[in-house]
Amino acid sequence: MATNKLLLLPGDGIGVEVLAEVRRLLALIEQKGILSFEIDEDLVGGAAYDAHGVAITDAAMAKAKAADAILFGAVGGPKWDGVAYDARPEAGLLRLRKDLELFANLRPAICYPALADASALKRELVDGLDIVIVRELTGGVYFGSPKEITDLGNGQKRAVDTQVYETYEIERIAKVAFELARVRSGRVTSAEKRNVMKSGLLWNQVVTATHKQGYEDVKLDHMLADALGMQLVRAPKQFDVIVTDNLFGDILSDVASMLTGSLGMLPSASLGAEDAATGKRKALYEPVHGSAPDIAGKGLANPIAMIASLAMALKYSFGKPEVAAVLDRAIAAVLDDGLRTGDIWTDGMTRVGTSEMGDAVLKKF
Amino acid sequence: MATNKLLLLPGDGIGVEVLAEVRRLLALIEQKGILSFEIDEDLVGGAAYDAHGVAITDAAMAKAKAADAILFGAVGGPKWDGVAYDARPEAGLLRLRKDLELFANLRPAICYPALADASALKRELVDGLDIVIVRELTGGVYFGSPKEITDLGNGQKRAVDTQVYETYEIERIAKVAFELARVRSGRVTSAEKRNVMKSGLLWNQVVTATHKQGYEDVKLDHMLADALGMQLVRAPKQFDVIVTDNLFGDILSDVASMLTGSLGMLPSASLGAEDAATGKRKALYEPVHGSAPDIAGKGLANPIAMIASLAMALKYSFGKPEVAAVLDRAIAAVLDDGLRTGDIWTDGMTRVGTSEMGDAVLKKF
Ligand SMILES: CC(C)[C@H](C(=O)O)[C@@H](O)C(=O)O
Ligand SMILES: CC(C)[C@H](C(=O)O)[C@@H](O)C(=O)O
Repeated sequence: MATNKLLLLPGDGIGVEVLAEVRRLLALIEQKGILSFEIDEDLVGGAAYDAHGVAITDAAMAKAKAADAILFGAVGGPKWDGVAYDARPEAGLLRLRKDLELFANLRPAICYPALADASALKRELVDGLDIVIVRELTGGVYFGSPKEITDLGNGQKRAVDTQVYETYEIERIAKVAFELARVRSGRVTSAEKRNVMKSGLLWNQVVTATHKQGYEDVKLDHMLADALGMQLVRAPKQFDVIVTDNLFGDILSDVASMLTGSLGMLPSASLGAEDAATGKRKALYEPVHGSAPDIAGKGLANPIAMIASLAMALKYSFGKPEVAAVLDRAIAAVLDDGLRTGDIWTDGMTRVGTSEMGDAVLKKF
Repeated sequence: MATNKLLLLPGDGIGVEVLAEVRRLLALIEQKGILSFEIDEDLVGGAAYDAHGVAITDAAMAKAKAADAILFGAVGGPKWDGVAYDARPEAGLLRLRKDLELFANLRPAICYPALADASALKRELVDGLDIVIVRELTGGVYFGSPKEITDLGNGQKRAVDTQVYETYEIERIAKVAFELARVRSGRVTSAEKRNVMKSGLLWNQVVTATHKQGYEDVKLDHMLADALGMQLVRAPKQFDVIVTDNLFGDILSDVASMLTGSLGMLPSASLGAEDAATGKRKALYEPVHGSAPDIAGKGLANPIAMIASLAMALKYSFGKPEVAAVLDRAIAAVLDDGLRTGDIWTDGMTRVGTSEMGDAVLKKF
């Protein structure tokens, strides 16, 4: 059996707790003889800063580059609010994305039927919701330069961030969206602010041109990012795949995930390009939720988003879609049994902690 | 009686229809001897482009500069999708904002009790909702340079937009937010992405410093813009005044307005600095909704957002808060009578068109 190189980066806050549940699942997968892993682990975020003064070490980056997949918990917390900009916890995540060229961030926003009542939206608007936001992850205002604060004297400073997109960056993310739409409902909505931003204009043009290069079986619409924000709230089920830039994707995917009432349930995948020789692609899997400092260390966090991230890894990185499906069904079964962590708890359900939830999934798996 | 210089810029689509209702109200206000207006009118957006090849003429800009207040309808539509970037309809609005230095955009998101059921959110989450988004309107990525597309050869282009903020720009908008909070519930939430953007870092620092300069009676919180997008959907009533930059304000205020179920009801004000000599400030009032090309010309548009924008003008520009209050009550009374345009119609209510709705408000005024 080929070994599969897996790097675990629990990070900060509840990242540590939810990844612990995944570790038990990995052991079970090996024990069942499904896959064998070569598992490594390292620090990232505030934890790395506390130990080494940086948000991720070069040694950890080397492990990340060698890994077939990375399972990432979460980073950040008020403890590191005063840390220098370049060493802040998020810098570790951003370096991973950038150095591994993980340009395609897939963020499903699924409303688990058992949780439809936990949504802020009326049940009929979200019940059965299943959309994916394809967010560009290595370009835009996150990485463009100049990115600086200049002292102008007289108590005045000037801060600059630069949004940059080149044709190839837009083209490759558009292709990911079109290809994903093909195995779904076949519809892509591209969002930008072409009425205000030149990068929005180029985005619109390149997505349109890419669509004509062999993707015309997919239905393509364009929507301004602000209007899309509105439509997400008004009638989210109108969407299938949404493709957008790094910053709009950040906000819109957070809005979308909250709509589902299932934030603590949502995984994400950040993928690189396929290697022409090996067919492999670099990949990092992480829950959509953050490090939740307010509940960290209390055993209250919902581990399902992290477990569902493992399911995505089984599917996209380890060629085991059928095992991923079993895991997804185990999650659904546990919900059907009425088990709920605090974030998704509603009247009449059984409130459980992180490890109880992990236990339950393990048992159904 | 002093005359008050008012410039009407109906613009495109339903902008023309909703401003027509306001024109009748202005006549009534004069007839009642409340105020006397010197009313001028001009083209903006696609209408100006069709007539003059630009989104706003210098002559119209001169009128705008001379006016005490501008009532603006809406601009844009698919008809002008192919127009050159600098002449696109939105350029007219952006030039007005920039050249008149209308840096403070106040966007109330109010849920009219009569309309709480029209919201996508559960009634209890939005009933009684009353928040204001204070959006910075003359800086950020909207106006920074470079803003350009460069041809790199080989079919590759590179698009750049630049987000720039200087200390004084952040300070003055923070003050607007703090002062507004004082006459409301006394709470301000400032949103940025300091974990990714240097402008977010400066924003955070300057808002914090401004708070210490005599605004400590106001409660200040900071929230990342993506987290704020989530919280707006999860529990919007936790907010009072939200202050944020131009681009985040664009998206977050659209999300907030849609939450209310009252999008066709929401006015906005864009204000400049107070003139030290006259105490006057430049001001433009416009509905939050757009030009709605799909229903334009059919007499279906909801004129209430435009009428409520007039109420804001009466309050902020013409020193008649009591008349503004009468007008706001007239709007509420019409809703209580069950009159609804299509956008806010629900079962059992009386469906009316633009001019019927205008008639009804006129009668109650
Ligand atoms: C932690 C932060 C840098 C990150 C981002 O802004 O991309 C997060 O919000 C996300 O969406 O993954
Ligand atoms: C029309 C457009 C340029 C404008 C903006 O992006 O500011 C609009 O969306 C708004 O919010 O007023």
